[in-house]
Amino acid sequence: MQPIQSLGYNVYFEENLESLLPFIEARGYSQILVLVDRNTNDNCLPVLQNAIPDLIHYDIIEVDPGEENKNIDFCIGVWKTMLDFGADRKALMINLGGGVVTDMGGFAASTFKRGIDFIQIPTTLLSQVDASVGGKTGIDLDNVKNIIGTFTQPQAVFISTEFLKTLDERQLVAGFAEIIKHGLIQDKDLYETCKSVDINNVPADLIYKSVQIKNNVITQDPTEKGLRKILNFGHTIGHAIEGYSLYNDANPLLHGEAIAIGMICEAWMSYKFTGLSEESLNDITNTFLSKYPQYVYSAEFYDSFLELMKNDKKNEDNKIGFALLKEIGDCTYNVYIDEQDIKSALDYYIEAAQLYYKL
Amino acid sequence: MQPIQSLGYNVYFEENLESLLPFIEARGYSQILVLVDRNTNDNCLPVLQNAIPDLIHYDIIEVDPGEENKNIDFCIGVWKTMLDFGADRKALMINLGGGVVTDMGGFAASTFKRGIDFIQIPTTLLSQVDASVGGKTGIDLDNVKNIIGTFTQPQAVFISTEFLKTLDERQLVAGFAEIIKHGLIQDKDLYETCKSVDINNVPADLIYKSVQIKNNVITQDPTEKGLRKILNFGHTIGHAIEGYSLYNDANPLLHGEAIAIGMICEAWMSYKFTGLSEESLNDITNTFLSKYPQYVYSAEFYDSFLELMKNDKKNEDNKIGFALLKEIGDCTYNVYIDEQDIKSALDYYIEAAQLYYKL
Repeated sequence: MQPIQSLGYNVYFEENLESLLPFIEARGYSQILVLVDRNTNDNCLPVLQNAIPDLIHYDIIEVDPGEENKNIDFCIGVWKTMLDFGADRKALMINLGGGVVTDMGGFAASTFKRGIDFIQIPTTLLSQVDASVGGKTGIDLDNVKNIIGTFTQPQAVFISTEFLKTLDERQLVAGFAEIIKHGLIQDKDLYETCKSVDINNVPADLIYKSVQIKNNVITQDPTEKGLRKILNFGHTIGHAIEGYSLYNDANPLLHGEAIAIGMICEAWMSYKFTGLSEESLNDITNTFLSKYPQYVYSAEFYDSFLELMKNDKKNEDNKIGFALLKEIGDCTYNVYIDEQDIKSALDYYIEAAQLYYKL
Repeated sequence: MQPIQSLGYNVYFEENLESLLPFIEARGYSQILVLVDRNTNDNCLPVLQNAIPDLIHYDIIEVDPGEENKNIDFCIGVWKTMLDFGADRKALMINLGGGVVTDMGGFAASTFKRGIDFIQIPTTLLSQVDASVGGKTGIDLDNVKNIIGTFTQPQAVFISTEFLKTLDERQLVAGFAEIIKHGLIQDKDLYETCKSVDINNVPADLIYKSVQIKNNVITQDPTEKGLRKILNFGHTIGHAIEGYSLYNDANPLLHGEAIAIGMICEAWMSYKFTGLSEESLNDITNTFLSKYPQYVYSAEFYDSFLELMKNDKKNEDNKIGFALLKEIGDCTYNVYIDEQDIKSALDYYIEAAQLYYKL
């Protein structure tokens, strides 16, 4: 597969990261730092080690896995370790992991000594289709996701389905939600294909297609002034539910699981406000309910959900803006919905899920 | 005085910040946050309040004054307060203060929700001539200055000598060191003028000239790939002494006091390695010694100074690079000096100061 050209860098699709070594060698970096979490240290580092063998020296920085650790404390730990390793401005950071590692590593690199180069090697399905293009880096603060960050492009991204073999099914299913989303907002055929894919064996060309869609959007709107907002379909409500779950559930929802719920709620809004047909609403609802576990929240938490939504970066002047579907494959944005309708959308998921699971 | 055009924004020289109100009104910000420290809250905020009267609402964020507070903990506090105020992406941050406020406020703004607009109103002589152009934002970490930061340009800068009336003489003298530096690296006439200026009454046109010199350099090299390094004259050694003093002295050196020492040391290096005449070395040494208090450090700390220098952002491959004078008004950069000679330069200051104060 040809590399996808993004904003000044390539996304390589290579099982064994063949282009990584020549890429690094051509750049003359003073030093290489590899950021991993415990899981990718064990499961993914061997693939990287094969790609950049002994002739290249690198230091490892390890963080704890999990969204709850994508915070400023861990980021400070990463910065201090970079200092301890004596990293200078010509150092390279390779972020090997899921979204926590690529988002936080990207932020740490983009702010260390006012910015050093970094390469993203996303190892989860979610991060491959979501975090690989767009140049967003970030960490969470006070329960608000990605509230601190920068827009900084990596030097390159490498995607290998080899890493997906190390994931459990729950993670694969969660990540798959972003692929379905890319179909829903821009490509009906992709959405239809998604319905019957074996999630334990996602074909590389489906990931390629998904990255291509996102890349087309973000290269048209690098700093999220307009069009790019369609990528937030499902995310306004999804992020709030995710934030809530992260701090209240012993076994919190994964990002993809939360946005699957968000997409059901926002599909209902699309049906109410932007012309999505009832048939499409039902199809979307059933597609997600058939793949994702039921989640239950009580109406008494709606106000705290709304608070979280208001803190979302995409809002302005305290109104809550949504990206909504006109039909499957066509998405609009800057649709401002009032609080009562948001609550009704939250009700819709609860009722639809109850009905589905009762059947 | 005409505004100075920097990288996409203007530096206005206005006693009463006349252009600020129309500037803000034209932009339609959703919200205005003003970052101050305790001193500027008391002494400088009234000038700002006159410039943007009641018709504009703004919220105040206050931090503690002093370089020791330009750290990640205070920055987290600023971010959290921005969240508490419900700041969205169309909010404006006005940083009203010295380098601590403008550097940290610039960093907080440039990373909050991946970047909101900010205006710098530097209120100390140092920050007016040093932090007003160049787009550097930053905070300190683990005793290393400005190690975390971004290159982000403000929307505008406002300079008023009105604020200088609130400063004590020590701060004025310290800030004046950067004006002398701008003379030394690019403008012999400015340097000669500096020798006889009444520091309690620095004329606005001297500040203007100094900002112009810095602006000419940084617009040619916005991200410090080359030429811009001449602005670091005196800073490699100066930063190390400043970092050391900050953590070891009850009453630590101010930035300008530390780089005055650094300039004496690096003038000696210039004499040894880049052709500065002995006469000029003596002239520079006496100029600084006549204005700045004697500082004493022992040779037993040289190794820790060197450690701090190695962590400085400007170094690559663990070599210590310097910007050095070829003559007064002409500076070169990327001169790599070995450790023994750096120690001799540190000795030179101690001996020159002893001799001067004995006279």
